[in-house]
Amino acid sequence: MSKQPMQEIYFDNSATTPVLPEVAETAVRLMCEDFGNPSALYRRGVAAEKLLQQARVTLARSINARPEEIIFTSGGTESNNTVLRGVMQAAKRRGKHLIISAVEHPSVLQTAEALRDEGFELDMLPVDDKCRVSPAALQELLRPDTVLVSVMLVNNEVGTIQPVAELARVIRAAGSQALLHVDAVQAYGKLPVDVRAMGIDLLSVSGHKLHAPKGTGFMYAAKGVRWLPLLTGGGQESNRRSGTENTPGICALGQAAELAHRHMAERQSRVTAVRQHLLAGLAGLPDWQINGPEDGLPNVLNISFGGIKSEVLLHMLETEGLCVSSGSACAAKKDKLSHVLTAMGCPRSRIEGAIRFSFSCLNTEDEADAAAGIVCRAVSELRELLR
Amino acid sequence: MSKQPMQEIYFDNSATTPVLPEVAETAVRLMCEDFGNPSALYRRGVAAEKLLQQARVTLARSINARPEEIIFTSGGTESNNTVLRGVMQAAKRRGKHLIISAVEHPSVLQTAEALRDEGFELDMLPVDDKCRVSPAALQELLRPDTVLVSVMLVNNEVGTIQPVAELARVIRAAGSQALLHVDAVQAYGKLPVDVRAMGIDLLSVSGHKLHAPKGTGFMYAAKGVRWLPLLTGGGQESNRRSGTENTPGICALGQAAELAHRHMAERQSRVTAVRQHLLAGLAGLPDWQINGPEDGLPNVLNISFGGIKSEVLLHMLETEGLCVSSGSACAAKKDKLSHVLTAMGCPRSRIEGAIRFSFSCLNTEDEADAAAGIVCRAVSELRELLR
Repeated sequence: MSKQPMQEIYFDNSATTPVLPEVAETAVRLMCEDFGNPSALYRRGVAAEKLLQQARVTLARSINARPEEIIFTSGGTESNNTVLRGVMQAAKRRGKHLIISAVEHPSVLQTAEALRDEGFELDMLPVDDKCRVSPAALQELLRPDTVLVSVMLVNNEVGTIQPVAELARVIRAAGSQALLHVDAVQAYGKLPVDVRAMGIDLLSVSGHKLHAPKGTGFMYAAKGVRWLPLLTGGGQESNRRSGTENTPGICALGQAAELAHRHMAERQSRVTAVRQHLLAGLAGLPDWQINGPEDGLPNVLNISFGGIKSEVLLHMLETEGLCVSSGSACAAKKDKLSHVLTAMGCPRSRIEGAIRFSFSCLNTEDEADAAAGIVCRAVSELRELLR
Repeated sequence: MSKQPMQEIYFDNSATTPVLPEVAETAVRLMCEDFGNPSALYRRGVAAEKLLQQARVTLARSINARPEEIIFTSGGTESNNTVLRGVMQAAKRRGKHLIISAVEHPSVLQTAEALRDEGFELDMLPVDDKCRVSPAALQELLRPDTVLVSVMLVNNEVGTIQPVAELARVIRAAGSQALLHVDAVQAYGKLPVDVRAMGIDLLSVSGHKLHAPKGTGFMYAAKGVRWLPLLTGGGQESNRRSGTENTPGICALGQAAELAHRHMAERQSRVTAVRQHLLAGLAGLPDWQINGPEDGLPNVLNISFGGIKSEVLLHMLETEGLCVSSGSACAAKKDKLSHVLTAMGCPRSRIEGAIRFSFSCLNTEDEADAAAGIVCRAVSELRELLR
């Protein structure tokens, strides 16, 4: 990719982000110099263990948890799988009922469906036309044998922020023993997450959406929550996740998380400006609409362009150097209609014409202006061709 | 660790290895520049997918497999867990019998025991005093309902090379449908592995034992072998391992594997020379013996020093800058007797006095000479104190 034919505009940050140079430097230092195995008993091992603990403390603080409530994983998918499988298996004598929202990421959705096929009972929370889950709907679905409720904090396709704290209150008010799991992959580092204030029992985070390396992530499990580990073996992470700890990745994640939280306000105002510039630049173009709410996470902007199929538009945009996607990266090659927009009740034509722009703190207003120009030209040209 | 009080001698390469500088450079390039999500449809995503495929082809070739038989994972533990759980679950209507050797790594052993607790049937292959599994013993344990046989290629504590090809022949000769899984974490890149010639159905590899980053690894599953994925979600790796691919780690692993295979003969002759220098330097010291065979992998050298407890010796060696371990890193903090040396029939005193030296291609004969001097002085001093 070193030879780009033109200046690239990367607006697909919900799919993945570049690692910040200083974060990559940390990873390399731990790969080549401070490379000890944290389980080893000599100085080099102890030093690695100490770096690991520092990262753990940083991550715990960032969500108002205790260090021993943080478990390092290989990413969001492993975190989500561990929570769903681990919690449901551990509680199966007490109950078999699981509730998720209809707009979860495939790593929650597919895993929940696999559990259903194995004999667990699954209910789905519907969403409204802005992709929002209703606390009242949760109240109706809760049963005495409900073990787990899993709802994401920010939707990856349209940016909707779910009312997670209200969902927690519904569970508590019902006197339910159900645990609340929150997939915070798209939210973490972009809006404040306080697991105690929000009543979250389990949380999943991925590094690579946050300018940390791929293959990194963590989960939070509140003290006292019972779950079975997904990976067994050497007993790392207090027997909760075996496998030699990926110290370079973990410390890079710790650093990226610290930067994200320290600069959250400034990063988010930048992202908001980028989003506004793009929207302003599209103002002259007829017949398009935003999928999702006005008050979602500014990083995600999902737009349908009337009369146009997203694959065709995507291809034109990319020849102009604009990287965007038609939905989640994980579904890109499946050629399926978005389950998120479907759950929101969008008509088929609108789903087929949806494009996701997703921004990071590395994007600029100039890029947004240029991108708007590219989109306006491409959409107009396509409409001309289709007339 | 940048300020070492003295020149460090790192002889714990079976626990983990430093990443080679050129390999770390590849990882950084993919973190910061070629950072695309391989699932994305634009140029940057396609480029990432191409790099991933190149790594896949390299790794497939290195074991005489097809590219589509390689599945990237987060490391040896995930590979071993996926194979054991995935194969046993997929076949549970046909049979529930699993055979492993008594000297497997905890990620096989603990997982097999967890499966036993869940209702599967587990038998253990014993080993002789050199840690070797006998093909005849396998023949006796095989049953019509045996689904999987799991035996490591090189033992991580004593270096024994198991007769894997013979075990495969025993399974075939018995007309058994059992699949053969080989944990090659300590072997891969150090001795030739040909899955077809050796009759291996499933194989596990870890990156960080091979100068690639932690958090990387792969498994091989022969075409047609049925198993259920451990991680479900976005459907990456042809639905066999969901989660955004760790492209920096995977490409670094591909490069490290290529280097290991290209330089295997020269690396192994270097390691052999290092081992011989260490042994020659210990020749004047009385009362010690090698645990394991003479013809094992030269990278691993396990020695018991008469009358001495390994923890005490380890501490003295580390104050002199010599990093070694008392067994596997994964068991170091458990304060348990080695299950490997126990299975070999070693008496308790000998197990308690065992030290593992493990070498890599980055070690030198001079280091071995210096290490031998350090060991001789420390052992003599301790024996003086204990008299």
